[in-house]
Amino acid sequence: MQSVTMSLEEAHALAVRCLTQHGADEENARAVADIVTAAERDLCHSHGLFRIPGYVASLKSGKANGKARPAVSDLAPSVVRVAGDGGFAPLALEVGRAALVERARSNGIAALALNDIYHFAALWPETEALAEQGLAAFAFTAAFPYVVAPGGRTPIFGTNPMAFAWPRPGKHPMVFDQASSTMARGEIMIAARDGHSVPYGAGIDSNGKDTTDPKAILDGGAQLAFGGYKGAALAMMVELLVGALIGDKLSFESEAVDNGDGGPPAGGELIIALDPARFGDGEGFAAHADLLFERMLSDDGVRLPGDRRRKAREVTARDGIRVQESLSRTLLELIGD
Amino acid sequence: MQSVTMSLEEAHALAVRCLTQHGADEENARAVADIVTAAERDLCHSHGLFRIPGYVASLKSGKANGKARPAVSDLAPSVVRVAGDGGFAPLALEVGRAALVERARSNGIAALALNDIYHFAALWPETEALAEQGLAAFAFTAAFPYVVAPGGRTPIFGTNPMAFAWPRPGKHPMVFDQASSTMARGEIMIAARDGHSVPYGAGIDSNGKDTTDPKAILDGGAQLAFGGYKGAALAMMVELLVGALIGDKLSFESEAVDNGDGGPPAGGELIIALDPARFGDGEGFAAHADLLFERMLSDDGVRLPGDRRRKAREVTARDGIRVQESLSRTLLELIGD
Repeated sequence: MQSVTMSLEEAHALAVRCLTQHGADEENARAVADIVTAAERDLCHSHGLFRIPGYVASLKSGKANGKARPAVSDLAPSVVRVAGDGGFAPLALEVGRAALVERARSNGIAALALNDIYHFAALWPETEALAEQGLAAFAFTAAFPYVVAPGGRTPIFGTNPMAFAWPRPGKHPMVFDQASSTMARGEIMIAARDGHSVPYGAGIDSNGKDTTDPKAILDGGAQLAFGGYKGAALAMMVELLVGALIGDKLSFESEAVDNGDGGPPAGGELIIALDPARFGDGEGFAAHADLLFERMLSDDGVRLPGDRRRKAREVTARDGIRVQESLSRTLLELIGD
Repeated sequence: MQSVTMSLEEAHALAVRCLTQHGADEENARAVADIVTAAERDLCHSHGLFRIPGYVASLKSGKANGKARPAVSDLAPSVVRVAGDGGFAPLALEVGRAALVERARSNGIAALALNDIYHFAALWPETEALAEQGLAAFAFTAAFPYVVAPGGRTPIFGTNPMAFAWPRPGKHPMVFDQASSTMARGEIMIAARDGHSVPYGAGIDSNGKDTTDPKAILDGGAQLAFGGYKGAALAMMVELLVGALIGDKLSFESEAVDNGDGGPPAGGELIIALDPARFGDGEGFAAHADLLFERMLSDDGVRLPGDRRRKAREVTARDGIRVQESLSRTLLELIGD
């Protein structure tokens, strides 16, 4: 595959230009470009520049507000809300973070409810950012309904990811971020395009039978949650948290209002932050957790979640990133070059 | 299998007698008997009277304090701690619940850290109790190290369960409670005893290879987390929450101090409670969640987590419970009858 090499700064500037060219203001474009560039930096290409055409599609269609002014308010002493103003998630996340951190430190635990946003990224950036400020954090968001409940045939849950980050003062936080589905939607689409099969457990066909045919999963079938009914329970939990709890959209509601522009789904996000300094072992928690991590790593073949991303940073800081030529061409077309 | 039928009241009284006979005071014995009887009521026999010999073993060995006086304190405005005084979890949970509910209602979200307890039950009772008071709740606890990290060979994580409950005012809460391991430890032990195989994915042998032989898993092998690395990430998260965050024991630390009496592990528990009335959709959250549940149930073959337990209540309230004769005999021996 032909590729173009660029620095992270160039990738960031390219993302900003694509977005501002199609109606985003500087602030929103910069926030989205930060998240997209962080994904490229960590060699998570599927959440990198690859997402820009989708963001632009939702600007062009008018689905998302490129000039959103997210507004922070307090719902309760330990609950912060950001009204996203119909914009992309990154600026809403930035705007709410300081209040969440402050409440978590003051009260020990706090929640951030983001409403009326379009989330099109991974969840590790927002949890990692909190862990870098010394907090443990969960994040949850939903998406379009692709995943079936155990025993059923009709997709009802999104691939609903959850992320968790653990602060390691003086070290990189430990962060994991995982979909409730066995496979990412995009992986199944790529397998279908390339004529490959997918493993059993990825999905069912329209008759409700397990299949390895990605086309059968996409065409009237459904994806399966990881680990059977247990992953499905987590997917349902995410629907309840980001749909019912915070008063935003369930996955099927998001699909019902979507204009099909290929951009991000409308919905909400919930973040819960905990301050280990307020849980009874403020002096010892980090060393205690390191005992666990060290013991894990003493077992040959084990690595900590997020390690691959962190190692990628050294490579991309030095060598820049490689962007597929077809994607590069698409992006240049978007800025009219 | 021969069995003895008894009412729930009789089961409760039997549990209390077994415990008080071996050094528990009335208050601790009653709290444990409540939890054990709730499991029998819901036809969860593996957490019912079956557990009493283990509780008694830890009273007899002096590992657990049968006269514990759990003490509540505030660690932060939204963080309550119960110092468990080395007793069984049920009384500590009761003692902390009112403060947790009050803080969650006042602040929107709150946490309860239980330290220095012996947890030998499921997690659904404590989350369900909170949901019956209108709160959504998570619970986490760890256990002895039986589960391996992805790529490793040495068990390091407990079967670390998490539970989640959702309040449905006027209806039974939705509650799920699931181990991070593919199978319960007890299921693998029973398969080994009866000479049955277990499914692939349950565990590995001492060479790190997938096996269906339960003996190989128990004898130098390890259990696997559900859904591969994703379930393992959750198991690790639980270690961090109930070990490092709240300053209690990681699974391997619990094993290191255990006296091998067959009773519950020493450790902690974390509960997080959220008040939907304080998250921006206080009027609508319940009906909104019901849209999800109704849509799930409209798909033939789907049921809500916890439904089986709830239906069992009608049966056991009417017909009582059946206790295996061998267990009944063991319990009668414990009370010297």
